[in-house]
Amino acid sequence: MIEEPGPSDTVTAALVVIGEEILSGRTKDTNTPYIAAHLSNAGIALREVRIVADVEAEIVDAVNALRQRYAYVLTTGGIGPTHDDVTTDAIGRAFGVPVAINDEAVEAMRLQYRPEDLTPTRLRMARIPQGAALIHNAVSRAPGYMIENVIVMAGIPGVMQVMLDEVMPRLAKGRPLQARSVRVSAPESEVATPLAALQMAYADVQMGSYPFFEHRRYGTYLVLRSADDDRLAEALEALWRLIAEHGFAASQVEES
Amino acid sequence: MIEEPGPSDTVTAALVVIGEEILSGRTKDTNTPYIAAHLSNAGIALREVRIVADVEAEIVDAVNALRQRYAYVLTTGGIGPTHDDVTTDAIGRAFGVPVAINDEAVEAMRLQYRPEDLTPTRLRMARIPQGAALIHNAVSRAPGYMIENVIVMAGIPGVMQVMLDEVMPRLAKGRPLQARSVRVSAPESEVATPLAALQMAYADVQMGSYPFFEHRRYGTYLVLRSADDDRLAEALEALWRLIAEHGFAASQVEES
Repeated sequence: MIEEPGPSDTVTAALVVIGEEILSGRTKDTNTPYIAAHLSNAGIALREVRIVADVEAEIVDAVNALRQRYAYVLTTGGIGPTHDDVTTDAIGRAFGVPVAINDEAVEAMRLQYRPEDLTPTRLRMARIPQGAALIHNAVSRAPGYMIENVIVMAGIPGVMQVMLDEVMPRLAKGRPLQARSVRVSAPESEVATPLAALQMAYADVQMGSYPFFEHRRYGTYLVLRSADDDRLAEALEALWRLIAEHGFAASQVEES
Repeated sequence: MIEEPGPSDTVTAALVVIGEEILSGRTKDTNTPYIAAHLSNAGIALREVRIVADVEAEIVDAVNALRQRYAYVLTTGGIGPTHDDVTTDAIGRAFGVPVAINDEAVEAMRLQYRPEDLTPTRLRMARIPQGAALIHNAVSRAPGYMIENVIVMAGIPGVMQVMLDEVMPRLAKGRPLQARSVRVSAPESEVATPLAALQMAYADVQMGSYPFFEHRRYGTYLVLRSADDDRLAEALEALWRLIAEHGFAASQVEES
């Protein structure tokens, strides 16, 4: 049982990306950055991602490990009609519940398919673990679902996105972390010591440094994150003072 | 101790991507598809990816879980000079070995830095777990390393890539899986049944189906994979016969 978090607590999530095609390098996984940004904007912190093959036992292991540790676990992929779509059976096994054709899912699919087109193969997409609540899918109708704190979505980005929009209102939200980023024209090794000192002084503000290499020169993005606007503004001011003291060239990065 | 695989065995690998910036959605992870394709071409099958935050305990857990299960574990990120670079300490803890400044790593860094620029902060990048073999880095000199079956690389793509090139000759290789892909202009639910029958007939050939949605129509990529050229050709022929029998429009996809 997940406790309802207060609005100032951090709500955490993990993501399980299911698909051999991602592991083989054949398909680029665009869902992870999309989901990461979407959750982050809602004050839900994505803490871990696992990409696993279309193998039932591996999905069961990943989901069971993560659903104990995080407020929510989202999954993408493996709920289509073919023999390598094993996510729903894995979820049933992870929760120890039967999987069966769900009438509400069949009704939803009737909006897309004529009765004679609801073949046994297509009806595989209406198989839902017992106790799950459907997540409607206005794009292609075969639904996703939520069972306890696990949210099962399609892998096709356009379908995943409508399912995510549909399920977001049901989730507890934290206070969104705000981020401020500064681009410094100095290698990470030169900003490391002042940044570590700043982190000591503002232990409640997350500070990350991300090196980059552009135009044959090294530079560093410094990112400050906090759910508290005032503390974030204070830490940012202190960072600018440090940058001036060290004579680094730097510019603030617009947050999208 | 990992046994040397024969050339026909599958060699497996897992990848641990370390970085808060990926989980927050701020940075797109281009390393995973690059490494997936690179390993696949060398006959090494990437079986799992975990993306974790810059938190020592989480890196330790991921590395220890994966290094027992797969022939190799690669990691990217978290070996720079700043306070949030905790990968090397995590690897030391995962293997129960001390971490110390490594003379060979310092020598390598002298190629990049004047003696007065080898500050204590920069020398953090020369800290290496005991027993690891260095992976040289012609781009920025601070090395990666390999300890038992774990390969620790930088997160900056250009640096990761030279480290991967440098370490690949040390790894055991399997027979590369060959893939043949066919683009079918029919939704996955219509190809599912014939594909399942084909999979039964060619159990030794991996078959995957990947739905897509383009120009407002659903279609399916069917991908056959095998290390055995002859079996792959036979299965592909059988697939084309099925496609003709069902009257699907289809085209072969050029493999890159």
